[in-house]
Amino acid sequence: MKVLICGIDGYLGWPLAMHLAMRGHVVHSVDNLSRRRRVAEVGSWSATPIREMSERLVAFKGETGKTIGFSYGDLRDVDFTFQVVKDFKPEAIVHLGEIPSAPYSMIDVHHCNETMMNNIVGTNNLLYAMHKFVPNCHLVKLGTMGEYGTPNIDIPEGFFEIEYRGRKDRLPFPRQAGSWYHQTKVHDTHNIMFACKIWGLRSTDIMQGVVHGIRTDEMTRDELLTRFDFDEVWGTALNRFCAQAVIGHELTPYGKGGQTRGYIALRDSIQCLTIAVENPPDKGEYRVFNQFDECYSVNELAGHVVKVAGEIGLNAKVWNIENPRVEAEEHYYNPDHDALYKLGFKPTNMLDDELKITLKELLRWRERIEAKKERIMPTVKWRA
Amino acid sequence: MKVLICGIDGYLGWPLAMHLAMRGHVVHSVDNLSRRRRVAEVGSWSATPIREMSERLVAFKGETGKTIGFSYGDLRDVDFTFQVVKDFKPEAIVHLGEIPSAPYSMIDVHHCNETMMNNIVGTNNLLYAMHKFVPNCHLVKLGTMGEYGTPNIDIPEGFFEIEYRGRKDRLPFPRQAGSWYHQTKVHDTHNIMFACKIWGLRSTDIMQGVVHGIRTDEMTRDELLTRFDFDEVWGTALNRFCAQAVIGHELTPYGKGGQTRGYIALRDSIQCLTIAVENPPDKGEYRVFNQFDECYSVNELAGHVVKVAGEIGLNAKVWNIENPRVEAEEHYYNPDHDALYKLGFKPTNMLDDELKITLKELLRWRERIEAKKERIMPTVKWRA
Repeated sequence: MKVLICGIDGYLGWPLAMHLAMRGHVVHSVDNLSRRRRVAEVGSWSATPIREMSERLVAFKGETGKTIGFSYGDLRDVDFTFQVVKDFKPEAIVHLGEIPSAPYSMIDVHHCNETMMNNIVGTNNLLYAMHKFVPNCHLVKLGTMGEYGTPNIDIPEGFFEIEYRGRKDRLPFPRQAGSWYHQTKVHDTHNIMFACKIWGLRSTDIMQGVVHGIRTDEMTRDELLTRFDFDEVWGTALNRFCAQAVIGHELTPYGKGGQTRGYIALRDSIQCLTIAVENPPDKGEYRVFNQFDECYSVNELAGHVVKVAGEIGLNAKVWNIENPRVEAEEHYYNPDHDALYKLGFKPTNMLDDELKITLKELLRWRERIEAKKERIMPTVKWRA
Repeated sequence: MKVLICGIDGYLGWPLAMHLAMRGHVVHSVDNLSRRRRVAEVGSWSATPIREMSERLVAFKGETGKTIGFSYGDLRDVDFTFQVVKDFKPEAIVHLGEIPSAPYSMIDVHHCNETMMNNIVGTNNLLYAMHKFVPNCHLVKLGTMGEYGTPNIDIPEGFFEIEYRGRKDRLPFPRQAGSWYHQTKVHDTHNIMFACKIWGLRSTDIMQGVVHGIRTDEMTRDELLTRFDFDEVWGTALNRFCAQAVIGHELTPYGKGGQTRGYIALRDSIQCLTIAVENPPDKGEYRVFNQFDECYSVNELAGHVVKVAGEIGLNAKVWNIENPRVEAEEHYYNPDHDALYKLGFKPTNMLDDELKITLKELLRWRERIEAKKERIMPTVKWRA
C-alpha cells in the first residue's frame, strides 16, 4: 500500500516508517523538522542521539535495502501539502505531524496560538488535499485519549448511544480536554468528522494513550534509534520516570498521583497504527479507536519503575511534587478499547518487561540525560 | 458598567453599542473593519447604506450626546488586544469580532483556514488578555445554535445530565456543526470552557439562533443604520427572503425546506445580549444561553414572508432550489431556551409584525438590493 507519513521525524513517525517499509508498503513522508527546533527552544534534547533525517534514511537503506521517501516541508503550506499528495497519491496518510506537547502549548499566548494554528491548519490542508486529489485515501489521524478528559462515566470509542428525555441518538462523546494542545486534538476531531460527512472521506481517528518505551525491532543499529524525550515539556510521565531513575533523580508524580490514564508501549503503538492502516474503514466512514493497552495511576507507574529499576541495581525513590497542571487527581476512569483488539492487536510485553528494556537502554545514554537534568522539574504552570 | 464590544462594525455590534451606551454603560469598541472588505470580496454590499465608522460615531454623539470609544485594530494581533484591554479595563467584553459566514468559510481551503485562524486566535488572545489584566471581567461570547447540529434528542443549554451504563455525569452537550465557520464556534466553546476552568474566568457563551430584522429603537437617523446582508454568502435565510420579496425575486429555500432552526429579531438579540452583560455569572462560571425566540422550518419562514409581503402589496413566490449545503432537510428539533426568559427576556414583536417593519424599510433600499441581485443565488457548494 502507498502510505504517506506526516511527521516522520517524531517519536512515533520514524519507527512507524521503518515498520511499514519492512512490511512491504511503499512509504513516503514529510516533516518540517520543527520538533528538533522546539525541543532545543526549551533547552533540552533527546536522550537518544538521533541522526539527521538524511543519515537515517541512508542507514535504513544500507541495513535493509528499503527506501523511504522524504519531502521536507510544512503542512501549513497549502501548496506544499497539495503537491506532495498530488504527486505521491497515497492510499493511506498517517498524520503524526502536529505539535504534541501540553506544557509547550501552555507556555504563553504565543505557544498556545502556535500549537492551535500548526495543528488545525495542517490537518485542514490534508483534508482538502485528500478531497481534491485522493478522495478514496484513508486518513489515520493521531488524536489523544486526553480529548475525553476524566468524565464520571465510561468512555466509549468516540461515540455513544444515549437516551435523553425519552429519545435516543448516537452522538459524539463529549470532549473535555486539559490543555491547549489537547484542545487542538478535539478541534481536529470535529473538523475530520465533518470532512468525512460532507466529502465522503474515510478516517480512523486514534485516541491514543500515553506512549512509553524506546525500542522497536527495526532499530538494529544506533543510527536507527528514534527520539526519546524526558524533559518537563516534551517528556511524558512514564518515560520521564525512567530517565529520572537512570540518573538517580527522584521520580516526580504531579500532585496526589491518582491521575489515571491509558498507556501503550512504543512497539505496540506502531503495531496498532499498522493495523489501522491495513484495515481501512468504508468510504465516508469516520471511526474512532481508543489506542492503549492498560490503565494505571501515575503513582502505580512510579511504583513499577521503582521495582524494575531495583532489579537492575538502580535505587529509585518517589517524590510527589506540586501539580503544575489543573486536573483531577482522583477520579473514575474506565475507557473502552475493544476495536483494535478485535482487529488482532496483541500487546507484546508485560509492562515491567518493557520497562526493563527501556531502563537498560537509557543507561547507555545516562550522560545525555544528566546533561539536561535541570530541564526535568516542571516550570510551565497551567495557572501562571 | 465598562463594556468592550469586539466587532462593533458588524450587524449586531453597532446596534448593541448604541443600546448599551443609551442605558448608561461606558462603551469602548474595536474592529478591523474586515466585514466590509469581505462582503466586497464576494461582490456584494449591505442593503442599507452604512456610514464609515467615524461618521457613525459622530452622528450618534450628535443625536444623543453619548460617546462610544473605538480602536481600529485586529484581535489576532496580541499586542493590540492586550493594549486595549489593559487600557480600558472592561468589566464585560462582548465578543462579536469573528467571521460569521458559513458559505464564506466553505469557499475553499484558504477561506476555511482564514475563518479558523481569525476566530480561534482572536478569542484566545482575548482570553489571555482577560487572564492577565482583568481576571474578574465577564466574557459574553457569540456562538451559534448551529454548534449543536440537529440531534435526534432535545438540545439543552450547553450541558446535560446523563446516565450511561449505570453511572451519571453532567457533560457538555455534543457538538455536530455543519460548516467550517460553525466548527470555529465549537472550537471557541471548548477553548473558553477550558479557560474558565483553569483561570477562573467567567463567561456567557451565547448559542444564538438566526437573527433577522433591520431596525432597533436607537436608529433614529439613517446615519445610525446597521448593515443588512442579503447575498448568498453573508445573508441569512429570513433576511434574504425579505430582500428577495422586495425586488420580486423568488424566495429560495434550500432543498426540501424542512430545515428547522431557532430565530430571533435583531432588537431581541440586542435585548438578550444586554441581559447577559447586566447579569454576569459567578467567577469561574462558564454558562451557556440558547438565544432565540421561536423555531421555524425554512418553508414556514418563506410562507410568513409571502403572507406579510402580500399585505403591503408585494407578490412573493417560493422556489425550493437545490441545496448547496450538506444538512438534514427533515429532522427532529427541540432546543431549550429558558435561561434568558428567566432573566427577564420578553420578545418584542410577533414574527409577522417584525417582518412588516423589515419589508417596509427594505423598500427604501430596493435599488441597492436590485444592483446586487446576481449575488443572491448560491454558488458556494459544500461538496464542491
